[in-house]
Amino acid sequence: MINVVLIGSGNVALHLCKAFEKTTKINIIQRFSRRLSNNAYFPVHIPVTNDISTLKKADVYFIAISDQAIAKLSKQLTFKSGLVVHTSGSMPLHTLECNANKGVFYPLQTFSLHKEIDFKNIPLALETEHKADYKLLEHIAKQISNYTYAVNSEQRNKLHIAAVFANNFSNHMYYLASKICKDHHIDFEILHPLIIESANKISQIPPFEAQTGPAKRKDTLVIENHIEQLEGISKEIYTLVTQSILNTYQSEEENG
Amino acid sequence: MINVVLIGSGNVALHLCKAFEKTTKINIIQRFSRRLSNNAYFPVHIPVTNDISTLKKADVYFIAISDQAIAKLSKQLTFKSGLVVHTSGSMPLHTLECNANKGVFYPLQTFSLHKEIDFKNIPLALETEHKADYKLLEHIAKQISNYTYAVNSEQRNKLHIAAVFANNFSNHMYYLASKICKDHHIDFEILHPLIIESANKISQIPPFEAQTGPAKRKDTLVIENHIEQLEGISKEIYTLVTQSILNTYQSEEENG
Repeated sequence: MINVVLIGSGNVALHLCKAFEKTTKINIIQRFSRRLSNNAYFPVHIPVTNDISTLKKADVYFIAISDQAIAKLSKQLTFKSGLVVHTSGSMPLHTLECNANKGVFYPLQTFSLHKEIDFKNIPLALETEHKADYKLLEHIAKQISNYTYAVNSEQRNKLHIAAVFANNFSNHMYYLASKICKDHHIDFEILHPLIIESANKISQIPPFEAQTGPAKRKDTLVIENHIEQLEGISKEIYTLVTQSILNTYQSEEENG
Repeated sequence: MINVVLIGSGNVALHLCKAFEKTTKINIIQRFSRRLSNNAYFPVHIPVTNDISTLKKADVYFIAISDQAIAKLSKQLTFKSGLVVHTSGSMPLHTLECNANKGVFYPLQTFSLHKEIDFKNIPLALETEHKADYKLLEHIAKQISNYTYAVNSEQRNKLHIAAVFANNFSNHMYYLASKICKDHHIDFEILHPLIIESANKISQIPPFEAQTGPAKRKDTLVIENHIEQLEGISKEIYTLVTQSILNTYQSEEENG
């Protein structure tokens, strides 16, 4: 049995807690929550503290708190044994300033408090200072997910930027689409199948090949007609992303 | 039995052909293909012509050709009976310059030549000049799809713009993400579950509420760190879309 302590009480901490609770090999012996917030969402049988000096001895300490708070909190972990990992995509391993061994356990997924998620399909990007620790972290990761990857701090930073484009920005594209629909009394639901097909497609075809639409076809008549109808920042985004698509396939022709 | 003639031989024509072939109530009596291209992909038992004057008498003529070619081709349809429909998202109904009754049959989906698609889940946006024609078109639509919507020409134009954001632009976001991964030797596959979850989410939560990430959190440290690492048009897109997300939730606070 691997004993872990969970530090934090946000979305990541909560979903990690639920995932660990489903395994037979990982035992959450304690939680730390500074403001004892979201307590109602966590299993009552796990002891919780808001006093860092009362942390129990564990094999691994998972820090799932906001990026900016990681360094400060980790400094307060003065013990030397065990492995301390954070769960952030954008912070390097050496953000951790504890005495114990350090690692990173980054789940690549978007978590919402009220949306259940199957951890088995969440890719986990792992990093440790020491090889032996990597084996332990990978062993833990494999209890809750089918997808584990070794990713160093620099790669993870780039991966986080890539995730912003792939996830946050594509969601904003959905939002801009939903706004156009709302403004013209069109049910946004009409676009759902298109959105889902477009996302599923990339498992079979790389996005470079999956691209369709007026910019890909260099259909300037349609592009101009669309730009004319848009206003404000939507117009700017339409123009810039269209230009980026045109550039992407322009250089293809030049190279090809 | 409803007799139809299919004009065109691109992706839309091909997928429409396959969908009609699966029904018992719709009979494709003839195809028209100017260059007789893609012939190998179509069922051999359907007669094909490249001479517009030899078109057979049918209940409905489906024009599935490029936007710019619709007006010119429709002018050559001199018969007065039957219903002529185009399948374009961005062209108004009156692009059709034929003598027969006019309509639009717009499948909201992205079609690839080599990717099979289940037409049952494709929303069909329908429009006709006359009510009786609408009933016929809706009857046909319901043979191949579970989702039919009445959408007029102005709404369809807006819907097409919305689809560019929701589908074409989100795919380009995937592409930019895949490029970052490739440049840093990261397997783009790591991002697949995130992309699929992000798309599936909007069936349950509107994109406004589903938004996550540094811009949503107003996490300026992470945003600046990301912008610093990007170059060229990716940097411009990151900056502009981030600004748009900031604006979106800024006005929420002001209004709320």
